[in-house]
Amino acid sequence: MQAENPKTESPDINVLVIGAGGVGVITTVALTRANKCNVHLVIRSDYKIVKERGYDINSCDYGHLVNWKPNYFYNNITNACASNIFFDYIVVTTKNIPDGPKEVTVPAIISPLVQSNYGLDPNKNMNIVLIQNGIDIEKEIFTRFNDPKLKLSVLSGIQLIGSSRIAPGVINQVGQDQLSIGSFKSSDKVANNAAQKFVEIYENPNINHVEFDPRVRFSRWKKLLYNSVLSTISTVVDLDTSHCFTLSSKEFDTEKTLFRPAMHEIIDIAQSENIIIDEQIIEFFINGSKTMDYKPSMCLDKEKNQLMELEVTLGNPLKIAKKNGINTPILNLVYTLLYLEQSKIKQKKDSL
Amino acid sequence: MQAENPKTESPDINVLVIGAGGVGVITTVALTRANKCNVHLVIRSDYKIVKERGYDINSCDYGHLVNWKPNYFYNNITNACASNIFFDYIVVTTKNIPDGPKEVTVPAIISPLVQSNYGLDPNKNMNIVLIQNGIDIEKEIFTRFNDPKLKLSVLSGIQLIGSSRIAPGVINQVGQDQLSIGSFKSSDKVANNAAQKFVEIYENPNINHVEFDPRVRFSRWKKLLYNSVLSTISTVVDLDTSHCFTLSSKEFDTEKTLFRPAMHEIIDIAQSENIIIDEQIIEFFINGSKTMDYKPSMCLDKEKNQLMELEVTLGNPLKIAKKNGINTPILNLVYTLLYLEQSKIKQKKDSL
Repeated sequence: MQAENPKTESPDINVLVIGAGGVGVITTVALTRANKCNVHLVIRSDYKIVKERGYDINSCDYGHLVNWKPNYFYNNITNACASNIFFDYIVVTTKNIPDGPKEVTVPAIISPLVQSNYGLDPNKNMNIVLIQNGIDIEKEIFTRFNDPKLKLSVLSGIQLIGSSRIAPGVINQVGQDQLSIGSFKSSDKVANNAAQKFVEIYENPNINHVEFDPRVRFSRWKKLLYNSVLSTISTVVDLDTSHCFTLSSKEFDTEKTLFRPAMHEIIDIAQSENIIIDEQIIEFFINGSKTMDYKPSMCLDKEKNQLMELEVTLGNPLKIAKKNGINTPILNLVYTLLYLEQSKIKQKKDSL
Repeated sequence: MQAENPKTESPDINVLVIGAGGVGVITTVALTRANKCNVHLVIRSDYKIVKERGYDINSCDYGHLVNWKPNYFYNNITNACASNIFFDYIVVTTKNIPDGPKEVTVPAIISPLVQSNYGLDPNKNMNIVLIQNGIDIEKEIFTRFNDPKLKLSVLSGIQLIGSSRIAPGVINQVGQDQLSIGSFKSSDKVANNAAQKFVEIYENPNINHVEFDPRVRFSRWKKLLYNSVLSTISTVVDLDTSHCFTLSSKEFDTEKTLFRPAMHEIIDIAQSENIIIDEQIIEFFINGSKTMDYKPSMCLDKEKNQLMELEVTLGNPLKIAKKNGINTPILNLVYTLLYLEQSKIKQKKDSL
C-alpha cells in the first residue's frame, strides 16, 4: 500500500495501529500529531470511505478534523505485512474476545506481523501494545509467542476516552484521551524503556494526557471496578449508566444492591492477589457514572448483536476468585446472565 | 349489548370473564361448553374482529374452533354493567399490575361491576375469581371492598395452561387446562361453597381438569417456584426456558447458579409463613422447563414493551422475606434488574 499522506521527515520509529474504532483512530491522531514516528493504521470496514474522503473526526482534544487521513493505512494485516516495514510498536485496539472465532483472537491477528517483523530484522525489539480492557489479556500473547529470540515485549495501555465510531468514517470523541502505558512484566527493563519511549511519541502537550504506568496490574484491577461492574450490569438491562441509578427501585436500589457490593467483590479478588484498591475509587466510578448518559461499549455490542468482552472483564476475574477462594455471589450471577446473552449472540451469528 | 349467540336454556348463574387473552378465552370456552351457566366476556382490543367473524381457536382441549363466539360479549366494563345482569362470578384473567396505571388495577377494573351487582340485588352473594399469578393479590380487593353488606367473596384460581393470543382474535392453546379454585379465606364457608360450585360449572369431563383447592396460599407459593424464578430470569435474558439451560456456561451453570438457589429462596420465604413446599417440586419445574421451548408471558410482555407482573410475582414475596428476615440474595438481584426494565417500559409508555 502506498503512503496516502507521506511525512516529509522520516523518523525511525514505525507504529502500526490495529483496529479503527473510536479508540484506534484517536490513538492514530495522537501519534500523528506528535510527529515523532511514522503512523500506520489497519482499517477494515471503513477502508474504502477513508481512502476516498478521509475521516470526519469530532474530537474534544483535536477539534473538528475533516478529510483526515493517517500517514499510511492498509485494508488488512496482510497488506500491512507486505509494506515490508518493521513495526516497532504494534498497537492493538480491537475488541478482545478470546471466546470468539479463532481467527480474530488477538494472537491470531498479530501473528503474521510478528513473523514479518522477525523476518525483516531478527535483532530488533518489537512491542505489542494492548490498549484493551480486562485482566490477564497478556497471557495468551506470552503463551503464543514465548520464543525469546522474537525479542517481543508486551505492553499494557489503559485508556480513559469517550470515543466512538458513530458512522462509517465518522469518529466522535467526547472525553479527553488519558493513556497510561507500562510493561506487563514490571521487572522487564527493555519493555519498560519501550513503554517510556511510547509516552514520548504519544504525548501532545496540553492536549492529551499520557503517562508511564509502573503498576500495570494494579491499574487494570482498578479499571475493572468499571468494566466488570458498571459495564456489565448496564449491559444486562440495556441502559446507560445514569439511568441505572435514576430508574432504580428505592427499596432495591441499584447502587446499594448491585453496584457497590459487586465492586467490593472486585476489590476482594484483587486483594487475594495482594493488590490493594482504595475504596475511594468506588466513589469516583459511582459518581462519574451517575451523571453520564453514556452506554458502555459492552452495552452497545449487545445491542448490535456483536460479541462482548465478557471473558477478559468478568470471566478472568472470576477464575482468579475461584482459584483464591473468594466469594463473589453477585458477579457470578451477572456472569451467568451475560454468558447466556453471549451464547445467544454466537448462535445468531452462526445462523447467518 | 345484545346477545350474539343466545342460549336456548337459561340457567340462573351468570359468569362474566374479564380479559380476552389466552387464559380468558379458553376459560370462556370451558364454561360455555359445560353449559351450566350464561357466559359473558369483556373483549377490549379484539371486540370488532370477534363481532365480525368470531374467534379462531386452536385448542388441545377443544380442537379447532372457527368463528367461535361467546354467549354474550361486551367491548368494555361499562357495557357489561349496562346489561343489568347480576354476575354471580366475576372472573378476572387480566394481567395484575398494581404498579401500573391506577385505572387498570384490578380493584379499579371491577369496581363498577361490584356496584352494579349490589344495585341489582343487595341480598345476593357475588364472587370475584382471580385467575392470576402471584401472592397477596387478594389483599387490595379485600381492602377496597371491605364492606360486609356487599356479600363479596374473593376466590383464587390457579391455572396451568399453555395458551396465548397469537394474533387479533386468534388463540393457540398447547397445554391442557388445569384449574384449581378455592377461597382466599380458607375458613369462609360461603366462599368455599361458591368455589365448589364453580368447579361444577367449569368442568368438561375428560377434557379439562378442575378441582377445588382447599389450600389456596400453599398452591400459590408452589406456583411461585415457576413465576418468581423461571419466568423472571428468562425475562432478564429474553430467552425461552429451555435455552436458559442449553446456552448456559458449564462453570456458571444457569440451573445451579440461578434457578435452584432462587427456588430455595422461595421455599425459605414460604417456610417463614409456615408453608412447607416439598423440594421435589423444584425437580418438577426444572425438568418441565428444560424441554419447553416456551417463553413465559413475562418475557413476552417485556419484548412487547408491556408492563410485567413483577410486583405480584416477585415484589410481594420479597416484602414477606424482608418482614420475616429471610435472606434472598438472588431474588433481590433479579428484582433489582427487572425493576429497571419495568421502569424503562413505564418511561417508554409515558413518552408515547
